[in-house]
Amino acid sequence: MSETKTNPNSWTTEITDIQPNRVAVRGYDIARLMGNVSFGAAVYLILRGELPDEKIGRLMDAILVSSIDHGATPPSALAARTVASTGASLSASVAAGIMSINESHGGAIENCARQLTLIITRVHETGSGLDDVIETVLAEMKASGQRMSGFGHRIHTDDPRTARLFELADEAGVCGPYVEAALAVERVFASSGKRLPINVDGAIGALLADLGFDYEVMNGMFMIARTAGLVAHVNEEKTRQKPMRKIDPVDHSYDGHPARDLP
Amino acid sequence: MSETKTNPNSWTTEITDIQPNRVAVRGYDIARLMGNVSFGAAVYLILRGELPDEKIGRLMDAILVSSIDHGATPPSALAARTVASTGASLSASVAAGIMSINESHGGAIENCARQLTLIITRVHETGSGLDDVIETVLAEMKASGQRMSGFGHRIHTDDPRTARLFELADEAGVCGPYVEAALAVERVFASSGKRLPINVDGAIGALLADLGFDYEVMNGMFMIARTAGLVAHVNEEKTRQKPMRKIDPVDHSYDGHPARDLP
Amino acid sequence: MSETKTNPNSWTTEITDIQPNRVAVRGYDIARLMGNVSFGAAVYLILRGELPDEKIGRLMDAILVSSIDHGATPPSALAARTVASTGASLSASVAAGIMSINESHGGAIENCARQLTLIITRVHETGSGLDDVIETVLAEMKASGQRMSGFGHRIHTDDPRTARLFELADEAGVCGPYVEAALAVERVFASSGKRLPINVDGAIGALLADLGFDYEVMNGMFMIARTAGLVAHVNEEKTRQKPMRKIDPVDHSYDGHPARDLP
Amino acid sequence: MSETKTNPNSWTTEITDIQPNRVAVRGYDIARLMGNVSFGAAVYLILRGELPDEKIGRLMDAILVSSIDHGATPPSALAARTVASTGASLSASVAAGIMSINESHGGAIENCARQLTLIITRVHETGSGLDDVIETVLAEMKASGQRMSGFGHRIHTDDPRTARLFELADEAGVCGPYVEAALAVERVFASSGKRLPINVDGAIGALLADLGFDYEVMNGMFMIARTAGLVAHVNEEKTRQKPMRKIDPVDHSYDGHPARDLP
Repeated sequence: MSETKTNPNSWTTEITDIQPNRVAVRGYDIARLMGNVSFGAAVYLILRGELPDEKIGRLMDAILVSSIDHGATPPSALAARTVASTGASLSASVAAGIMSINESHGGAIENCARQLTLIITRVHETGSGLDDVIETVLAEMKASGQRMSGFGHRIHTDDPRTARLFELADEAGVCGPYVEAALAVERVFASSGKRLPINVDGAIGALLADLGFDYEVMNGMFMIARTAGLVAHVNEEKTRQKPMRKIDPVDHSYDGHPARDLP
Repeated sequence: MSETKTNPNSWTTEITDIQPNRVAVRGYDIARLMGNVSFGAAVYLILRGELPDEKIGRLMDAILVSSIDHGATPPSALAARTVASTGASLSASVAAGIMSINESHGGAIENCARQLTLIITRVHETGSGLDDVIETVLAEMKASGQRMSGFGHRIHTDDPRTARLFELADEAGVCGPYVEAALAVERVFASSGKRLPINVDGAIGALLADLGFDYEVMNGMFMIARTAGLVAHVNEEKTRQKPMRKIDPVDHSYDGHPARDLP
Repeated sequence: MSETKTNPNSWTTEITDIQPNRVAVRGYDIARLMGNVSFGAAVYLILRGELPDEKIGRLMDAILVSSIDHGATPPSALAARTVASTGASLSASVAAGIMSINESHGGAIENCARQLTLIITRVHETGSGLDDVIETVLAEMKASGQRMSGFGHRIHTDDPRTARLFELADEAGVCGPYVEAALAVERVFASSGKRLPINVDGAIGALLADLGFDYEVMNGMFMIARTAGLVAHVNEEKTRQKPMRKIDPVDHSYDGHPARDLP
Repeated sequence: MSETKTNPNSWTTEITDIQPNRVAVRGYDIARLMGNVSFGAAVYLILRGELPDEKIGRLMDAILVSSIDHGATPPSALAARTVASTGASLSASVAAGIMSINESHGGAIENCARQLTLIITRVHETGSGLDDVIETVLAEMKASGQRMSGFGHRIHTDDPRTARLFELADEAGVCGPYVEAALAVERVFASSGKRLPINVDGAIGALLADLGFDYEVMNGMFMIARTAGLVAHVNEEKTRQKPMRKIDPVDHSYDGHPARDLP
């Protein structure tokens, strides 16, 4: 009699089922998804396990579009270009850009969502008003040397992407306690004379939290979107620039297509 | 009198214009793009410089959806999980996956497009028929130890994504000489008794070439799509598995949602 | 009148001075260092700012040699090989290996040093005996779900590198309170029936702490040493294996030069 | 009767043998290597399979010391610092630096060795004199838009590391046809009025070729050495600089220990 030897390293995954001539993401045949759902909806599916309704699918696309690129200023673009300028492959150069998405770049999405949770939980626990809780929490943060993530921007005083995201989220009916809390934080800042409006990272953090995303994959949304921008930057570096140039992080300007409106 | 000292490292970019309270990708205000174009269309825009029409935008989404994940079998998923299992950050783990997209994984997109160009050019130059040229080219490749990229698959004998992509491309009216040549290669293989159907990489390579993409960014499409799958794999590794486990590249199975159809 | 415009991004570094025809590391002409100090001594210099004496220089070399490779078992070797098998460059493949050196792989060096500091500080603060403090600290760790880093090994019950490192450290006269504390932890484990001897990471952590290294660069010693092993693994993968193979993390064996002694 | 099922993915490695309580690199017990050979000698062993004699071991250390760092000017240091400034881990930041070692940075080592091989082979095949062959080869290169790697430097007109390396190589008795050819190339350049002396990369390429290293691992020597410098740069960035600063690639200076001589 022979015994079946079990492999102790055998493991399972819940993401995608691969069978001969069949690929199914979270249960859905990929050929059926293709052409029927947008990439934003497919991203929601693969990260959450369920397909979103059409409006949320469109919101997901808008979130991805909002983060597709921010020119040559962010460290991810500069790191990718620096690596590309040495003769690295497209994939290695893009990877160096992805590796730059951390606490200080893109990380405000997750951090803001976590801090808003703190505020919302405190409201539930204490029964105090939202603005009162925010004042207390901001004072506590200041005392311990922390700062609220997702508010204010180095370049934009009024981030054009934030208003648009909230507008689309409103249309999709997904604005919940996180967006409410984020707007309240902005208001409390303003009433104390600080102009620190919600930036695009803060807005995405609040929206993803209202949609029910896990904190751990929130910055992943930014990585997915920005990979597209990084591919464009690496390709531009390789085609328009000389190898090993000194990449000035400040002294660059835009010489592309002039401003135009949608057709 | 003062002289203006010019910075020799000053440089320009054509991708995105960043001004206070304004972000414009290839000339289009990003807030206008958000909600009005899909992410697939925005990817086309950032890589090509122009917005696609709606049908091509939808095809772009379908291409991205087709490549979003392929389970735990590809080296990109295994590399990302291996790095994640050591306690690496989400961004470093995903980056390791991106770094695995090269010549032998994802690279068939670009390679297939280049090889089809060779065939198409030869037809134009010699005036010979497409199938004759392909027979000659395949014989030359065999003699020099090369092989045609984008045909056949380790797992799928009839890749479900290929037929769907060509169907959608047909609807969008973009099938041109590259798709024609790819189908002819498949036919020539078949007539010599070889079952080597176009795989998803070959199909994407042919379509991107017919759409006019530069070879250099073609594999970038795969990176953009797959980043989503990699985020899902890294998150699953961190939440469902123990650190430093031995990740078996073969002995894994799917235990996620059972097969289901679109709503 | 002209004003001098200061660049707000101007910055300084204390590591290496580059002048035409002169490179000086921490003040020492690199051409003078070459041939006069070992690489281990140069690593000490660049990380600490001062040259070590000759015995400590030799100990640094021994630490680097001890970590140069650990075969095909560690995730860094597997990640580097997985990326290499896709056709990645040597540098991208080695980088994927480096990215795997974190909390759960190599990280015990820093963690062990930090935990030993806790023990040593507690002895100073309370005036209690070393073994008593260790018993208390281990009990606290157990209660809070933590575990002592740098003790025990998946493969070695008696790590051959540990004894040798302590022997060489003893010759160099650098064993101080950290090595003493590490040996005491091992003893306390043993007296409670647990066979958890100091492993090579724990030994290096204790030694680097006794030498006065900052915690933040400790795992860097492991990265420097292991880069050599990773170059060897990537080169072997590329020369002895086929692209895209399934890299089994367990079922591999050694077929190199048989055991031999130093000449 | 039971059959033994063979794992088709079983594989072997020639680098390091791992047994319980025994680690042997290329056949040598690692505990025996520790304290008895320098890290440079161990690097030679792991890359070549044999231990070098003592003089060559010392030369290996000198090669590693020569490449340990080149200040803040190279793209590897800038990429590592850019990634570090976003809050990335030490290992991810160092990895970004390693990924920058390619064709245009560090790659001259391998390229120079390959080009010198071409020259040496041509001498053997044609029976012509070395200088004549070099003149022809340089003319051919110029005609095809290539340039000789390993000669000239952006900063150094007379690289202090080159002379020292050749001096030590001479002492070790390893200068062979590659060093001879490199010196001849320098001479031919000079006789045509071009001041393009051998730089440190060219010198290392010639020496590694004379030592018999495979081309494929040559740039690996640079990666091993530079990992030490990258650890120092990343640590300095994290301890002396603010997150997300604009890292100027030109406007930086040295403020470390003043010039000093060996004790």
